[in-house]
Amino acid sequence: MWKVEFKTSHLKLKTLERPLILITNDDGYASKGIRELIKMVQPIGNVLVVAPAEGQSGKSHAVSIGSFVRMKKLQDDANLTIYSVTGTPVDCLKMALGNILTRKPDLLISGINHGSNSSVNAFYSGTMGAAREGAFNGIPSIGLSLCDYDADADFSVVIKHSEPMIKKVLSENKNPNLCLNVNFPKVTESEFKGLRICRQAQGVWKESFVENTDPYGGKIYWLTGNFENAEPNAADTDEWALSNNYAPVVPMNLDSTDFAELQNINYLI
Amino acid sequence: MWKVEFKTSHLKLKTLERPLILITNDDGYASKGIRELIKMVQPIGNVLVVAPAEGQSGKSHAVSIGSFVRMKKLQDDANLTIYSVTGTPVDCLKMALGNILTRKPDLLISGINHGSNSSVNAFYSGTMGAAREGAFNGIPSIGLSLCDYDADADFSVVIKHSEPMIKKVLSENKNPNLCLNVNFPKVTESEFKGLRICRQAQGVWKESFVENTDPYGGKIYWLTGNFENAEPNAADTDEWALSNNYAPVVPMNLDSTDFAELQNINYLI
Repeated sequence: MWKVEFKTSHLKLKTLERPLILITNDDGYASKGIRELIKMVQPIGNVLVVAPAEGQSGKSHAVSIGSFVRMKKLQDDANLTIYSVTGTPVDCLKMALGNILTRKPDLLISGINHGSNSSVNAFYSGTMGAAREGAFNGIPSIGLSLCDYDADADFSVVIKHSEPMIKKVLSENKNPNLCLNVNFPKVTESEFKGLRICRQAQGVWKESFVENTDPYGGKIYWLTGNFENAEPNAADTDEWALSNNYAPVVPMNLDSTDFAELQNINYLI
Repeated sequence: MWKVEFKTSHLKLKTLERPLILITNDDGYASKGIRELIKMVQPIGNVLVVAPAEGQSGKSHAVSIGSFVRMKKLQDDANLTIYSVTGTPVDCLKMALGNILTRKPDLLISGINHGSNSSVNAFYSGTMGAAREGAFNGIPSIGLSLCDYDADADFSVVIKHSEPMIKKVLSENKNPNLCLNVNFPKVTESEFKGLRICRQAQGVWKESFVENTDPYGGKIYWLTGNFENAEPNAADTDEWALSNNYAPVVPMNLDSTDFAELQNINYLI
């Protein structure tokens, strides 16, 4: 009943010699951000896109357990193949690596996200969930975001300044588990001050649900909230960089251990 | 049209003086693990349960964006109030803190999960997503899991050995952002060797989707895979502890910055 054989399909990509670049996002394959990213990377390498069929914002590192996904091949040219998957961004990564590709990509780029993934947003973000999953699997991974939620946002500053960064990662990076969280401020080219290596700012989303009523009189609740930056004056943080027209580049950890706290909890034993 | 006023309901809890313990999980309010946990903590404090209406395994730190949730009050006794929410575990946290409670709980416990949340499972886990969200909000938080996926699993060893740990956290912990990931092996009381403070083991899920056909002939895909422990002999890891009948206690980081890698990426600027 179950058919497990697979991995037959993607022969075009493996016969080519340029870098193989895997692309996903959390806004869905049809969003402007991923379309602009695809255009930018096509001259650099051969591109496989496996992206959600619909928007998957806020899906973090979620995977589909107890439910199935569907997949559709949307385009299959020599240098560009596009699939959509009705799952999360991390599902897309697992589909690309487990079912489509026969070799490891040289780079994963997740984005370009419509909206910020700085500070603790890195934990809620489907964009960064996919980037972390790539890095788990030994693929240097970059999450790219623009602090503009507009579906028709202007990505020209991101494109211009992330393209050389992507080339540098391809040529100079030695860390197979590299995971970069890169956010661009919503500024013009003349206002933009450049990339800046940063740490994640400490902060918290203060959130609650807004109550509404459905057409049948039932109560429904929509999540809303505001981000509170706990250290607005810390110039080594991503939030400070964004506020000052820089694009923060934060290397992301794949280990959830709080090593400092390890020393403090001996009273538990 | 939108009604934003709220926070009126939960007066019983705030008038009581015992510790206020918030409980959630990712298996849903009706699962055996959370029911056993509720029974265990009722003698310790006053308990608010806000848990998913249905199973939310693998939902990580996801929140409901672009979709609403519903909430139902299931029980409202003097010392125990239970709500279900049709969202993720982190949604449940945000509902409890933003819409139900008028003061911060003294402790959050997420679980008892049916299945392991050790190693990188901490990133995929809805149980640990909720625990991380509690810690973000200054609530000492504990994720409890048993390495047994059986819906009718035996939680007696977890109950016996986590109860004193919970009391110690309530009486001795000074860190408002404490987040502990505690996993119990599937062993009998006589086999169990005790709690053990550990770091997260490095490892990766090697996964792919199994293809199946729906009744209409369409292809559908189900995620399956195996965990590969990259350091099976490292005795300071959670995976080693579980394999040797200990319950690893891993303090969890709220900062995603890879501080070591910060030094290596100056070539990008």
